Amino acid sequence: MSSAVDLIIFGTRGDLSRRKLFPALYQLDRAGLLEDGVRIAGLARDDISNDEFAADIEQTLREAFSEANIDDESCERFCARLQYLYVDFAQPDQYSAIKQWLASDRIAIYYLATPPSLFGMISEHLAGAGCITHDSRIVLEKPIGHDLASSRQVNDAVASCFDECNIYRIDHYLGKETVQNLLALRFANRMINSQWDNSCVDHVQITAAETVGIEGRWSYYDKVGQLRDMIQNHVLQLLCMVAMEPPNSLRADEIRAEKVKILRALSPITAATVAEQAVRGQYTAGWVNGTPVVGYLDEEGSESDSSNTETFVALKAYIDNWRWAGVPFYLRTGKRMESKVTEVVITYKDPPHAIFPENEYVACNRLIIRLQPNEGIELEMLSKKQSLKERMSLEKRHLNLDFFDSSGESRIADAYERLFLEVINGDQWLFVSREEIEASWSWCDALLDAWKEKGVGVSGYSAGSWGPSKAEMLIEKDQCTWHRS
Amino acid sequence: MSSAVDLIIFGTRGDLSRRKLFPALYQLDRAGLLEDGVRIAGLARDDISNDEFAADIEQTLREAFSEANIDDESCERFCARLQYLYVDFAQPDQYSAIKQWLASDRIAIYYLATPPSLFGMISEHLAGAGCITHDSRIVLEKPIGHDLASSRQVNDAVASCFDECNIYRIDHYLGKETVQNLLALRFANRMINSQWDNSCVDHVQITAAETVGIEGRWSYYDKVGQLRDMIQNHVLQLLCMVAMEPPNSLRADEIRAEKVKILRALSPITAATVAEQAVRGQYTAGWVNGTPVVGYLDEEGSESDSSNTETFVALKAYIDNWRWAGVPFYLRTGKRMESKVTEVVITYKDPPHAIFPENEYVACNRLIIRLQPNEGIELEMLSKKQSLKERMSLEKRHLNLDFFDSSGESRIADAYERLFLEVINGDQWLFVSREEIEASWSWCDALLDAWKEKGVGVSGYSAGSWGPSKAEMLIEKDQCTWHRS
Repeated sequence: MSSAVDLIIFGTRGDLSRRKLFPALYQLDRAGLLEDGVRIAGLARDDISNDEFAADIEQTLREAFSEANIDDESCERFCARLQYLYVDFAQPDQYSAIKQWLASDRIAIYYLATPPSLFGMISEHLAGAGCITHDSRIVLEKPIGHDLASSRQVNDAVASCFDECNIYRIDHYLGKETVQNLLALRFANRMINSQWDNSCVDHVQITAAETVGIEGRWSYYDKVGQLRDMIQNHVLQLLCMVAMEPPNSLRADEIRAEKVKILRALSPITAATVAEQAVRGQYTAGWVNGTPVVGYLDEEGSESDSSNTETFVALKAYIDNWRWAGVPFYLRTGKRMESKVTEVVITYKDPPHAIFPENEYVACNRLIIRLQPNEGIELEMLSKKQSLKERMSLEKRHLNLDFFDSSGESRIADAYERLFLEVINGDQWLFVSREEIEASWSWCDALLDAWKEKGVGVSGYSAGSWGPSKAEMLIEKDQCTWHRS
Repeated sequence: MSSAVDLIIFGTRGDLSRRKLFPALYQLDRAGLLEDGVRIAGLARDDISNDEFAADIEQTLREAFSEANIDDESCERFCARLQYLYVDFAQPDQYSAIKQWLASDRIAIYYLATPPSLFGMISEHLAGAGCITHDSRIVLEKPIGHDLASSRQVNDAVASCFDECNIYRIDHYLGKETVQNLLALRFANRMINSQWDNSCVDHVQITAAETVGIEGRWSYYDKVGQLRDMIQNHVLQLLCMVAMEPPNSLRADEIRAEKVKILRALSPITAATVAEQAVRGQYTAGWVNGTPVVGYLDEEGSESDSSNTETFVALKAYIDNWRWAGVPFYLRTGKRMESKVTEVVITYKDPPHAIFPENEYVACNRLIIRLQPNEGIELEMLSKKQSLKERMSLEKRHLNLDFFDSSGESRIADAYERLFLEVINGDQWLFVSREEIEASWSWCDALLDAWKEKGVGVSGYSAGSWGPSKAEMLIEKDQCTWHRS
C-alpha cells in the first residue's frame, strides 16, 4: 500500500503519459495499491476543463486495456483523483497554481514527462514558487544529457533544487519483473551465484533489437545515434544487473554502489581498440515483417542525403575486475532489425573435458533473460536422451525459470507500475544514480571520441537484417555466434 | 541393435524371471532391439514341454503389460525364440543338454536368476560340460556373499570359470534411466559439475524406503538384515554415482575405477563412532497404507520371539577425499516405512550472506533424483515472487530435469531392458565389479563389527512410520531434516 501523496505530472498530454503513466497509475489503483488519499494533477498548456481532462484519460484507459483489466467502478474512483492544472512550464508565475493545489501535509512528487532540456528550468521554477520541501521528489525520464558534460549541467540544475535522495531517474528496464527476478536468481540460489564469474561463464550477450525505425524523430535522432539512445542507458543498466557484485543488502544505496563499480570498471574502448571492439551501422531500405521500408536517409523528416549517425551498434566490452576479467560482454542494439528482441544471454563454459560425443557440447548451458518479446528466464541444459537405442546421448533442454504461468497472477505488471510504487514509497533501488549516469557517459564518450579520432563511418545494413556483417565478424572471430531465439 | 547371442536363463520359473527378465526381453524384441538370431533357453527342473513353457511365458507377458504395450505379432515372434531345457542344476551330467543346444558361432550368456549359493556350482558344472569359451558371459544377481570373506569365495568360484571381463553383476538401480541421466547432468553441464563438491554442497541424503515387510522370507532375512540387504548394494551404488570423480571416459573400466575409489574412501564407522553415526531399527506392529500389519517378530515364518536383526538402518557417512571432505552423506533404508520412496537429495549450501529475508532461505537449492515412486530429477530453486504488493520476496520453485514427458517415448524402459542390452553388447559400464563388491563389504563388515563390539540392539519403530526417533536425531543434531516429498 502506498502513502497518501500528491503526484504532479508534467507533460500530461504527451505520448508517455497516455501510453504508460496513466495506465500504470490506474492499474495500481485497481489493485488496491494506491491509498485513498493519493491525488494526481496533470499539467499542460491545453485550454481544457477538469472534466474534459478526466474524460480524455478515461478514454485512453479504455483503449489501453482489455475488458478483463478495466472496470467501471475503479475507473470512476481513479478519475476522481485527477485534477487538471493549466501551466505553461516556461512561465514562472504560473507555478503558483501548483503551489495552491498542493496539500501541505503531503509529499509532492513531480514527474517530468517532458523533454530533458526542461528539467533544469522546471526545477528552478518549482523552487521559485515555493513548491519544493525537503521531502519533495522529482522523477526524470531519460536522456539526462547527451554526453558527460551536458549530463552534469542537467544534474547540477536539478541538484540545486532537489537532494540526490529525492531524484528518481527512470530506466524503465529496471522496473521489469524479469530484471528483478534476475537479482533473486543470482543472489538467493547458491547453484547460480557460486559460479557467476570468469571461471564458469564463457561470455555474455546483451541484445536490444527494435523493428521500428526513427518514428518521425529524424532531426532529433540524427544528433544522437544508437549508442547514446540505447547503450548509454538501457543496455549498460542490464549489464550492471548481470555483472554487479552481491550487494551488502537490497537497500538502494548498496545496489547502486555496486552498479557504479561495474560502470567504472568498464574497460574504455580507445582509438587503438575501436576497430576490433566496435561496429557502427546504418540501415538502408529493406523489408521488415513482410513490409518494404525506406532507408535511414529517406526517412520522413530526413534533412540530408548523407549522415554519419549510427542506427546500429555492436560492441565487445570487458569489465576490468576480478570476477569478470577476460569474459567478453557482447552488446548489440539497432533500429529496423529482423525482430524485436531484448535479451541477456549468459553462456557457460563447456565442461573442461568431453566424455560425451564432441558434437553434443555446443554451448551446453545458457541462461537467457528475455525482456522482449515475452518476459521470461530460461535455462538450457543437457540431459540424457531417453532411448534404449543409444547407450548415452545428450539432448538440449529448456527450463523455464520465470514461473509467470504458475504465479496465479493473470497479468505481468508493467514496469511503470512498479516504478511508480517505488517512487511513492520513497525507495530508489530501481532508479539510476547520478554517479551511474556519469560513469555511463564517461565510457560512451570515450568510444565516441575513438570513432571520431579514427574517422569511423557507418556500415550499411538492410532494414530487416541483424545489422552489418561486421557485427557477425565481431563475435565470430572469438568462435561465438549471436544468440538466435 | 543387439548381436545374435544365445541367452540361457537359470531359474526360469522363478519370480524374477516372470516379473522382470522375460518382460524385459519381450520389450526389447518388440522395440526391434533384439537381433533376429537371438535365442533364449529357459532352464528349470519342471517336467513341462517346450509349448507349455512358451504358453506360460506368453500368459505372463499378457498379464504384465497393458494392451498398448503388447501385440500378437511381436508376442508370437518372441515366443518362437524360446526353448525350454530340463536341467537339474545340481547334476553335472545334465548340463550336456545346454551344450547340445548351444550354437558354436554364438556368444553364450548365462543368466543366473538363482540363489547366490548356486553361482559357484553352476559355473563349475558349465565348465565341466564344456559350455564356456573365452567369450561366454555370466550374469549374477545379488547378493554376492553376506560379508567380505563369503563374497570372495563366490567370486573366486565364478572367477575360476569366467574372466572378470565376462562377469556381469547386476544392481538393477544402475539400469534405471534416471541414474544414467544423473551422469549426463553431472558431466555434461558446467553449471552442475563446477560446484559438485564440499564448497557448495551442504549434505547428501539417500533414502530407500519400502512399505513391504519380510514377504515370507523371515528365516532368510533374519540372518541378513537391512544393512546387507540394501545398503551394501543399492544404496552404496547410488552413493557412487553421486560422488564419483568425473571418469576419463564413459568406458566401463573408467567408470568402475572411479566407483571403487569412492567405496574405498568411505570413512569406516567404528566402535568409537557407531553411536553417533548409525541407527538400527526393527518394526513393531502398526498401520501401512491404512492396513494393520504385524511386527517383525510376528511375521509369517518367524522362528523366534526375539531377534536382533535390523529392518531399518540410518547412517551418517563421510567420504575421505578432497571433493567430499566434511560433507555428510545420510543414508537410510527400511522395511514397513510410511511410503515407498527411493531418492537421492543433494542439498546445496545457502548463499554465504542473506540479502533477502532470513526465513526464505531454508535449503534454497536442492537436486532430487527420484527412483521411486516415479522416476524423475527435480531442481528446487528460489525465484522472485511475482507481486507488486511486496518489494522483493522469494518463492520456492520446482523444475523438472528429467523430461520424460517431452521425450516422445510413451514408456520409461525398465532397468532390466537396459541391462540385458548392455550384457548382449558386452558392455560392463552398468554392472558392478568385483573390486566394488569387496570394497562395499569391507565397509559394511566394519560397521557390523562395531555394532557387535558395542552390543548395539535394535530400536523399535511402528510399522508405517519413518523409523525410530533416533534416526531423526541422527540428522537433526546437524541442523538438517530428512527430506519429505
